[in-house]
Amino acid sequence: MTINVLGYASTSARAPLVPYNFVRRNPRVDDVVIEILYCGICHTDLHYVQNDWGRSSYPLVPGHEIIGRVISVGSDVRRFKPNDMVGVGCMVDSCQNCSSCTQGMEQYCQEGPTFTYNSIDRRDKTTTFGGYSEKIIVNEKFVLRIPEKLDPRGAAPLLCAGITTWSPLRHWRIGMGSNIGVIGLGGLGHMALKLAKALGANVTLFTRSPSKEKDARDLGADNVVISTNTKQMGAVNNKFDLIIDTVPYAHELNSYLPLLSVNGTLVLVGFPGNLEPTLNTTPLIMGRRSIAGSDIGGIAETQELLDFCGNHGITADIEMIKIEDINKAYERMLKSDVKYRFVIDMSSLREMK
Amino acid sequence: MTINVLGYASTSARAPLVPYNFVRRNPRVDDVVIEILYCGICHTDLHYVQNDWGRSSYPLVPGHEIIGRVISVGSDVRRFKPNDMVGVGCMVDSCQNCSSCTQGMEQYCQEGPTFTYNSIDRRDKTTTFGGYSEKIIVNEKFVLRIPEKLDPRGAAPLLCAGITTWSPLRHWRIGMGSNIGVIGLGGLGHMALKLAKALGANVTLFTRSPSKEKDARDLGADNVVISTNTKQMGAVNNKFDLIIDTVPYAHELNSYLPLLSVNGTLVLVGFPGNLEPTLNTTPLIMGRRSIAGSDIGGIAETQELLDFCGNHGITADIEMIKIEDINKAYERMLKSDVKYRFVIDMSSLREMK
Repeated sequence: MTINVLGYASTSARAPLVPYNFVRRNPRVDDVVIEILYCGICHTDLHYVQNDWGRSSYPLVPGHEIIGRVISVGSDVRRFKPNDMVGVGCMVDSCQNCSSCTQGMEQYCQEGPTFTYNSIDRRDKTTTFGGYSEKIIVNEKFVLRIPEKLDPRGAAPLLCAGITTWSPLRHWRIGMGSNIGVIGLGGLGHMALKLAKALGANVTLFTRSPSKEKDARDLGADNVVISTNTKQMGAVNNKFDLIIDTVPYAHELNSYLPLLSVNGTLVLVGFPGNLEPTLNTTPLIMGRRSIAGSDIGGIAETQELLDFCGNHGITADIEMIKIEDINKAYERMLKSDVKYRFVIDMSSLREMK
Repeated sequence: MTINVLGYASTSARAPLVPYNFVRRNPRVDDVVIEILYCGICHTDLHYVQNDWGRSSYPLVPGHEIIGRVISVGSDVRRFKPNDMVGVGCMVDSCQNCSSCTQGMEQYCQEGPTFTYNSIDRRDKTTTFGGYSEKIIVNEKFVLRIPEKLDPRGAAPLLCAGITTWSPLRHWRIGMGSNIGVIGLGGLGHMALKLAKALGANVTLFTRSPSKEKDARDLGADNVVISTNTKQMGAVNNKFDLIIDTVPYAHELNSYLPLLSVNGTLVLVGFPGNLEPTLNTTPLIMGRRSIAGSDIGGIAETQELLDFCGNHGITADIEMIKIEDINKAYERMLKSDVKYRFVIDMSSLREMK
């Protein structure tokens, strides 16, 4: 049995996404077959479509914020049954043997995890295709349970934007009484505000745009600091246990380091690349401060996030689109014209058949 | 009562150090008066003498690796009595009220600690003068006890070079089974090797000089990696829980980041300044790695180090000099021509009177 599915693919770095018919692998005994209902649009999708990181292979079907219903399960699957509401994030497999995997940090698998798209399946060496499609087939260990209480549309972005901000909040033990800064109010930033607030932290948004203040406060920010205003920046010196930097391009960090408390950390979650301008280490040394990076999160941690969001009624703020509008959505995303995440209603794909 | 002392001072950024008579403050009820026997020479001394950091005021008496005997104590002093062997490091006071001080991290005092030299005394606003002198007067809270078992000459560098490497080893909980890297084999690097080894870690020295391998192994290194050899560097990928970078100038860090394990940290202890070349953040994000800084250590932590060294018989490898040779010693230090720390025998100063 093979499974023919319709999706949307990019066929080269310069081409728009177009409808694309392809074959999913035969389901294995430990696989879950999922009908995709919704798929969030992540900035990473666009990076891969445009081959910004030089590792895209085409045709490429993006999408790693996947919500769907189980259609069928393999004979060894124990945790899921047909009709369950489930999610799939950025990973669909990992070595499961290394020191990272055995500690629940599959995102840091020493062999590299198998990503949901543009990756090579560890067992049959086929290319993985993502969530801009009708169905997906995933090993049950990488399938997440979506709490019934959550609106599944707004839950989609939890699987990347959500976990990417949740993981550092948990790793650095943020909770009641913590002081958290968030740089940037996009898909990741708006999740960081909601999650840090729900964890009991005092939350400050850093932004260059005074126009974002009201929205930030509505999303949970206790304070908003205009990062270009040196007086406002100076007023929060030594304050933050953790600053989550969601900005997806190189930007100036030196003015943020003195805002960290002793032992504080600025964690980059959105920008892999060369830091410009150059970093001055003095504030690091003078307060045992750190600059760190963090990448998505582990599977158990993602389930923890989904359960937390179920208990606290947290979803992403989204704008639903039809899949035929995907290229327009990318254009708007490039202009930051979205509050705060596009989610594709996959019924629009089924209507095209 | 005032105390007239002879010392060695620099009188301007371009002048050699010369004999200098000055007056120490009247001892207070909580002060310990110390006859200085030995004083280590730290690279920081030279930075201040040359005004490299733009904050030197002259005349300047350097020296913050001080070993001596108590001559007398104030009426409120409880922990010390005449003839005790004691030490004084980089700090002689701090606010003792802020969140850092109350947690034993006086080095990160929110108001800034009072340094042993070129600093302003918090109570009488006089300038502090360091250990290149006959006597020093210090609040008992900033006086350390030197274990009787330790050779006091080799103990002097523990008060700066020792604590600067001990503090990160303890903060990042290095112990049995940890993998530690040390970059650079100078005063700090040689202490890092000894201390990490005594804590039970597996220790690797990174150096550009193959000629340093034998010495490094004698000092405790299990491995030596030539940092310019990409094959040797690649062979230790993902290995280190902590890399202590003791290099005192800007140097390339990007090749070290992939050598850190998941959650690993590279901590800078020797270079406050602009990182060149620019840092690539990808290895930080892909393994939740960190770059941090660390500055000396707290007073309780310094006493812990001294007691640990007493129990393990650890001192610095030193070369004793007479104080009249101080300017020659600085010239040799600039050429890294010392194994591994100069210590001034202060009897040479008393002989000049």
